[in-house]
Amino acid sequence: MSNKFVVGADVGGTAVKWIAGTDPATPEFSGEIPTCPNNIEATFQSLVDVVRSETDRTVDLFGLACAGVFDPVTSILCGSPNLPGWQGKNIQQFAESAFPGAAVTVTNDVNAALVGEWMFGAGRGYDNLAMIALGTGVGGALIVNGQLISGSYNGAGEFGHMVIERNGLECACGSKGCLEAYTGARGIVQRSNSDLTVADLFKKADAGDKEAIDLFRETGEYLAIGVGNLINIINPDLVIIGGGVARAGDLILKPCIQDVSKYILASIKPEDVVVPAKLGVNAAAIGVAVMARGNS
Amino acid sequence: MSNKFVVGADVGGTAVKWIAGTDPATPEFSGEIPTCPNNIEATFQSLVDVVRSETDRTVDLFGLACAGVFDPVTSILCGSPNLPGWQGKNIQQFAESAFPGAAVTVTNDVNAALVGEWMFGAGRGYDNLAMIALGTGVGGALIVNGQLISGSYNGAGEFGHMVIERNGLECACGSKGCLEAYTGARGIVQRSNSDLTVADLFKKADAGDKEAIDLFRETGEYLAIGVGNLINIINPDLVIIGGGVARAGDLILKPCIQDVSKYILASIKPEDVVVPAKLGVNAAAIGVAVMARGNS
Repeated sequence: MSNKFVVGADVGGTAVKWIAGTDPATPEFSGEIPTCPNNIEATFQSLVDVVRSETDRTVDLFGLACAGVFDPVTSILCGSPNLPGWQGKNIQQFAESAFPGAAVTVTNDVNAALVGEWMFGAGRGYDNLAMIALGTGVGGALIVNGQLISGSYNGAGEFGHMVIERNGLECACGSKGCLEAYTGARGIVQRSNSDLTVADLFKKADAGDKEAIDLFRETGEYLAIGVGNLINIINPDLVIIGGGVARAGDLILKPCIQDVSKYILASIKPEDVVVPAKLGVNAAAIGVAVMARGNS
Repeated sequence: MSNKFVVGADVGGTAVKWIAGTDPATPEFSGEIPTCPNNIEATFQSLVDVVRSETDRTVDLFGLACAGVFDPVTSILCGSPNLPGWQGKNIQQFAESAFPGAAVTVTNDVNAALVGEWMFGAGRGYDNLAMIALGTGVGGALIVNGQLISGSYNGAGEFGHMVIERNGLECACGSKGCLEAYTGARGIVQRSNSDLTVADLFKKADAGDKEAIDLFRETGEYLAIGVGNLINIINPDLVIIGGGVARAGDLILKPCIQDVSKYILASIKPEDVVVPAKLGVNAAAIGVAVMARGNS
């Protein structure tokens, strides 16, 4: 284990979760600051300020995970509707300016979260993993034979946009019947025919509201189709379910696990394959810190 | 290039295609014999006889591709409805008895065909490939970062059983809405509401029959959903369309290519990504011969 000092930060639409230390598994410092979705400079300044208020150690490595599609060739962030001021910007350059002299690694948030889960969480000990991140949208990431897969043009892992119902519900991407249209927060709220947020719907389901419970059960049943497709296509050791919506836990996971067997050829125990993420909110910050160390 | 003499054979439900020589790309001998789907011993005997009638060279390597799911751990062939007498048998042992002293490699036919296309056909020069084999059923195979992917329990590549329409047409596997139920020969015939075979339907379409043309156009449109899902999930360099049904060529491929853009996030040219197989009927025999050489 090197004694290089690493900062890992995960930039979402509302908050930046960050960790810092020599070992990402047991960071000496961690915290959360608000994201300025329209102001990339201000967000980086706040991050530098909060890290500097904790420690004056030289930052050797800086790992940055961002919601959206990060193009490693151009270093530009694209497809990031929740970070409008960050889209189209050279994120690598901003990150390099934040901690001068640090070696910078940038990736998308789901890749980072999967690496975190792989190293220290639900995926530990396996080399073939898929992660479905249920958030406002639905993201994904893939490790095959111990390698994070980005695909031919950095387009792998878009699990949210696999079609599970031809001519189904409209998706934010312009297509129809995508997994995201049923299992993303936006899709769940839409299917609820209410003005409630997903958090509100969680509370109702927790309090025993039958309609809300049914809504999450159906979400799990839709998710099972996506999980089944992933298993039939790449047959990973585990499919890890993470993201904010996954905090609904068994409300979604149990019906998903029950239904997966319908869709896959082999007779496996779905509960051994479909598992919840373990690391919680710091998964991506930890994962991108691990990636930064690996690249150094 | 070693000068080892290799036999490659591809066992389907009706015929065994075989090649033999020192270089699988330019085999010195090749041919086809009928399969005895209920008699594994008789089929191997016919293969040995026909090879021996051509050459008395010592067979150093024997590659055998079989329709179905071959379990490399137990060496048992399973899930092979068109080879009932082969199912549940230790194929490795039969192959070793056929050419005593030869080093034997067994795999499934779609894996073998993809390796053939990768080395000498449509996939040459790429390291991330998916193949969809449209036959009676719909098979698949996957190469990621230059490695053939079998998955956690040898279940990868079952592209035919990804669900593209929740609660859709019944599939032979017991599930509903699988890609195979729409784009396999069985599914196409079913959708035609006729007693014709796929070969008959080809002929009608070739002769300009509008209903038959529409049937294949729809097949291509369904195929596009499966291709789009593969691109969104693993983003291979190419998706190679092979198998007997793919001989319908542009009747299926053109509408497929036209529709793929609807389902994928990135703005690529689908015609650069979705391509027909090139090697024809000997793809799997050539591919498994290459694998046998690689394993030696």
